[in-house]
Amino acid sequence: MSLILAIDIGGTHIRVAAYEPDSTKPIAHKRTKSLAQTPGVFDRLVEAVESVWQDGQVSAIGIASPGPLDPYTGTILDTPNIPQWKNFPLAPKLSERFGVPVYLDNDANMAGLGEWQFGAGRGHSNLVYLTISTGIGGGVIVNDSLLQGFHGMGAELGHMIIDPDGPLCGCGHRGHIESFSSGPAIVRYVNELIHAGEKTTLHADPNLSPAQIADAALAGDPLAISAFERAGHYLGIAVANYLAIFDPSILVFGGGVSQVGDLLFKPFEASLRKHVFHPHYMDDLTISKAALGDDAGLLGALALARLALSSSKG
Amino acid sequence: MSLILAIDIGGTHIRVAAYEPDSTKPIAHKRTKSLAQTPGVFDRLVEAVESVWQDGQVSAIGIASPGPLDPYTGTILDTPNIPQWKNFPLAPKLSERFGVPVYLDNDANMAGLGEWQFGAGRGHSNLVYLTISTGIGGGVIVNDSLLQGFHGMGAELGHMIIDPDGPLCGCGHRGHIESFSSGPAIVRYVNELIHAGEKTTLHADPNLSPAQIADAALAGDPLAISAFERAGHYLGIAVANYLAIFDPSILVFGGGVSQVGDLLFKPFEASLRKHVFHPHYMDDLTISKAALGDDAGLLGALALARLALSSSKG
Repeated sequence: MSLILAIDIGGTHIRVAAYEPDSTKPIAHKRTKSLAQTPGVFDRLVEAVESVWQDGQVSAIGIASPGPLDPYTGTILDTPNIPQWKNFPLAPKLSERFGVPVYLDNDANMAGLGEWQFGAGRGHSNLVYLTISTGIGGGVIVNDSLLQGFHGMGAELGHMIIDPDGPLCGCGHRGHIESFSSGPAIVRYVNELIHAGEKTTLHADPNLSPAQIADAALAGDPLAISAFERAGHYLGIAVANYLAIFDPSILVFGGGVSQVGDLLFKPFEASLRKHVFHPHYMDDLTISKAALGDDAGLLGALALARLALSSSKG
Repeated sequence: MSLILAIDIGGTHIRVAAYEPDSTKPIAHKRTKSLAQTPGVFDRLVEAVESVWQDGQVSAIGIASPGPLDPYTGTILDTPNIPQWKNFPLAPKLSERFGVPVYLDNDANMAGLGEWQFGAGRGHSNLVYLTISTGIGGGVIVNDSLLQGFHGMGAELGHMIIDPDGPLCGCGHRGHIESFSSGPAIVRYVNELIHAGEKTTLHADPNLSPAQIADAALAGDPLAISAFERAGHYLGIAVANYLAIFDPSILVFGGGVSQVGDLLFKPFEASLRKHVFHPHYMDDLTISKAALGDDAGLLGALALARLALSSSKG
C-alpha cells in the first residue's frame, strides 16, 4: 500500500498516473480522451484507472477536475465540459469502486498546490497562483496550507469585481478580472475595436485565438499590442488587490495566455507598481512562471492525496 | 509565570490588562491617555505596564496597535497617530525592558483574532472580520490560522480596488472600498451632494459625523438615506469579492459605522446577494456583529500571545 494515483480531468483528455512515495515521476501513466460531451466519461475514467492499477499497492487517489465542485464531499456540482456530471459524487463512486480514499479539488487549486509542493513555489509559505487561459483561476497557500474555504469554493480569484460597470463575465456577472484579462476577453476586445473601425492586420472573428493576436502584436500591430496592454493593465489592478489581501512571497502565473510573455507582463508590472497599496508588498516578492506545465494538475492531485494521508495519520 | 499582559494602543487611550490562563476577565487593568501627539508615549506605556506588573508572574505581552507595522520584527513602521514612532521597534524595546517575549500585530487583525477566539467567531475555521469606522480594516482566519502574510501586511481588506475610477482613498489610491464605505467617505459624499444642491436637513460641514447623518436618515432625510444606501451598495460588492476569495463561514462586522444597523446593512445585503459570484457562498453563512466591543483589540492581543506561546512550546 504505497502508490498514489493522480487523475487530471481536462476538457479533452483524462490523465491517470501512479507515483511511488517521495517521487514525482510516474511509474505508470495513461492518457485517454475524455470525450466529455459523450456519455460514459465515468466508465472511461474507471478503465484508465484500471490500466495503471496494482492490486494491494494503491493507498489513495487524488483528482484535479474543473469545478465548481465540493472538495469536502468529493462531488462535482456542475462542470461545463461534462454535461452528465451534475451533482455527481465522483470521489465517493471511485472510492467505492477501488476501495481506497479518494480526494478531489478543482484544477486551479490543484495547480497552485502542485506548484507549491513541487514547482515554482517550493519553500514559500504564502503563495498566489493564477492561471490565465479561457478563464482566470486561482490557487492560494496561506500559512503553508491550501485555502479551500467553508464550502470549498475559496480562491475563485478570477471572479473578483474590479469595476462594477465592466464587461460581462462568462459567469453572468460584470467587471470580474476574468472579463478583462482572460483569453476570450482579449479576443472580444479585439473584435470590438475592429468593428469600431480601428486599423489592424487582424480580421474580425470571434474564433481568433490569443496566440494569433500575440503574433500580430509581435509583428507590430498597434491594435493587437493595445489589447494585451489593456489586459495587463487590469491584471495589475487585480494583483494589487491580491497583494493587499494575501501579502504572498510569490506570484506564480500559469495558463496559455500567460505564455505570451512581455506583451502581457510588461504592462502588467507597470500597472501593478502603480496600483499596489504600498510598495513594501513588492520587496523580495518573487513573480514566476509556473514550472510544472501540463503536469500541474496531476502533481497537485498527487500532493492533495499525500497531504490528506499524512494528516489523517498525524 | 502564568499571566499574560495585553496592550491595546488607540488614538486616544492606551489600555493594559493582565489575564490568568484560560480567562478573558482581566485581574488588573490600566487605562491611560495615549496623548499620542505628545512625546513620551513609550514612557507612558511602560508606566502603564508597570502598574499591572507582577514580578515573576508574567509569561508574555501581546500588543494591538494601529499599523502599518511589521509583526515579525515587532516594529511600528509609521503609524499616523503617533508621529514619534517611525520604524520604532516597540516589541523588542518592551521585551528588553520587561524580560518576556512580546508579540505585536495591527488592531484590525487583532480584533479579528479576538472575535475568532473569544467572540462572535468561535468555532469557525474561516472568518472574515471587517471594521468600518474612520477606515476599513480586515482580519482574516484561514484554516484556523491568522492570515498575516509574508511582510505581515496581509488582510488589508479596506484597500481593495473595486473601481479604478472611484474616489480618492485616504492612502492616495483610487477606488478602494474604504473610499466608498468608511465614515469619512460617507461624510464626503453627503457634503458633495449638498454642494451640488440636493435637498436635505443636513448642512454642509466636513466635520459632520456618520452618527449625525444616521440620525437624519432615521428622521427620513432622503439624502442621508441615500448616503448609507451607496455605502452599503459598494460594501456588498467588496464582500462579494471576499466571499469568492476566502469563502468564509462567518462575516463579523465591527467599528462605529457598522453600528448604524439596517441603514447600512439592508442595502449591503441586497447588493451582496446581487453581486455574489455564486449563491452557494451564502448557504449557512453567518453574518454577525462583533461581540467584544471595545475589548476586541485587547482580547486579540491576549490571543496572539497565548497562541505564540503554545506554538513555541508545541
